[in-house]
Amino acid sequence: MLVRILGSAAGGRFPQWNCGCLNCRGVRTGAIRARERTQDSVAVSADGHSWFLLNASPDVLTQIERQPALQPRGLRHSPLAGILLSNGDLDHVLGLFSLRESHPLTLYATRAVYQGLAEGNAVFETLRRHPRQLSVRTLELGSEVVLQLADGSPSGLTARAIAVPGKLPAHLERSSRPSAEDNVCFLIHDTYSAQSLLYASSVASVRGPSELFHMADCLLFDGTFWTNDELIRQGVGTASAEQMAHLPIYGETGSLALLKSLTCRRIFTHINNTNPILSEDSAERAEVEARGWEVAHDGMELCL
Amino acid sequence: MLVRILGSAAGGRFPQWNCGCLNCRGVRTGAIRARERTQDSVAVSADGHSWFLLNASPDVLTQIERQPALQPRGLRHSPLAGILLSNGDLDHVLGLFSLRESHPLTLYATRAVYQGLAEGNAVFETLRRHPRQLSVRTLELGSEVVLQLADGSPSGLTARAIAVPGKLPAHLERSSRPSAEDNVCFLIHDTYSAQSLLYASSVASVRGPSELFHMADCLLFDGTFWTNDELIRQGVGTASAEQMAHLPIYGETGSLALLKSLTCRRIFTHINNTNPILSEDSAERAEVEARGWEVAHDGMELCL
Repeated sequence: MLVRILGSAAGGRFPQWNCGCLNCRGVRTGAIRARERTQDSVAVSADGHSWFLLNASPDVLTQIERQPALQPRGLRHSPLAGILLSNGDLDHVLGLFSLRESHPLTLYATRAVYQGLAEGNAVFETLRRHPRQLSVRTLELGSEVVLQLADGSPSGLTARAIAVPGKLPAHLERSSRPSAEDNVCFLIHDTYSAQSLLYASSVASVRGPSELFHMADCLLFDGTFWTNDELIRQGVGTASAEQMAHLPIYGETGSLALLKSLTCRRIFTHINNTNPILSEDSAERAEVEARGWEVAHDGMELCL
Repeated sequence: MLVRILGSAAGGRFPQWNCGCLNCRGVRTGAIRARERTQDSVAVSADGHSWFLLNASPDVLTQIERQPALQPRGLRHSPLAGILLSNGDLDHVLGLFSLRESHPLTLYATRAVYQGLAEGNAVFETLRRHPRQLSVRTLELGSEVVLQLADGSPSGLTARAIAVPGKLPAHLERSSRPSAEDNVCFLIHDTYSAQSLLYASSVASVRGPSELFHMADCLLFDGTFWTNDELIRQGVGTASAEQMAHLPIYGETGSLALLKSLTCRRIFTHINNTNPILSEDSAERAEVEARGWEVAHDGMELCL
């Protein structure tokens, strides 16, 4: 399985358009050693020809132009065979509205994520201008689906959507009822190599000794925040990591501690602009790496 | 007045994600001399400190990171004092959903454009999470409004929204009634320099000897298509320029001919990926320049 990290930042990108925190100012001025990052999205492929997007970030057009493998090989063509949505957050779905031009798209999503997006949004009609423009394959929690190529044949990859603690997208909090389908991680399995990728970029908590995180050969995990009070302490926000449904990395109840028994390759992604691990010379970055974790960056390539 | 062309491509960007036409293939491979372009948006300022966006393209975050003048000068800050929408096309409004992070925004739009965007779109709630997040100033056709700074003081710029022939956004065609407010151009006037910019990036036709285009010291005009049958002839689409409500550049009824009496500085923008003027060595580019027109590119700076 080929894996390309297209974007490794949380919603808002790094640097963030309205932010002058140490990291954002530092990366703009060159005062810190850090890479700019677009918003969270991953491309996976069994053969290097057909690709599946895990989430469609608002930066999707930039991400495609940086990855020749995702560019057309014909007059009108795209190597994108499908798009999987892990939740309905705007930083995971807005890119869909840039993938129109009446091009056929196949969407894989839980019923709740799809309804939150397709119902009550006039903008969604841009993906339904022609009867065969949009195909939707509903993901049932825990069930494995074969990811299909445009002709219906198996791609060599399967996906399982597994519910993980999360929350409704902010814009739906007042109008929708929470559901276990609102936030999932994906176990992507390559039937040839027998390798699995677990993509879990939004995880509010890891309850008990979960088997889930031991099922993968490689884990892409929620690295949004370093601490629970990161935004508050830096004076850029009032919400805690917990309120935003992201398990912080550091501390006794953080992901470094809770997932310390994992031995697979493990990578933090979906990293918020305020997270000190973005600064490559920071103590926090050194600590993460000393514990055997990597930090995703845009353009990172994995082969499983 | 300072003017920055943030994006000079039509919807879909150049190159376009699913397109392998001569231009798109050429710019990717280097076979033609051409610049990549993000989607249509312009920033204007009287003082270089506070800026107004003319449209919010899906590429707005990339555009801000390329323009230091648009970046924050504080912990949480933006020099963007307001955003004017010339219509509700997705390539003109999607960027709004990337300018959230609960940051206060001031939107200038006609009633029709605002309603098409704000009503029946759950995603719009992301801009209404807090009572003072979004301020809306309704534009009446033909009336001049003072563009205000955050504290309510005049910015030194005024704007007039003037109806021009256009059409409803594609995603609203089945659900909404057309209105003269659906598509406007903006006459931006600098009260200090007494100079005016006419920004008219979507214009379906120029009826009669319009005075409108003689009112400006600089014209940014719809350069979407070279000919009416451009998409059809290139085999990448079935719609004519006329059906898409864009006056083509070439021919007896094209903009080059119809606007030939203009003597102000005149620049084509909102250029579709298929338009031969994108290729800097093309005969079409040479013809446009021989007629005294310029071709906008991302990062172009004007001072009026």
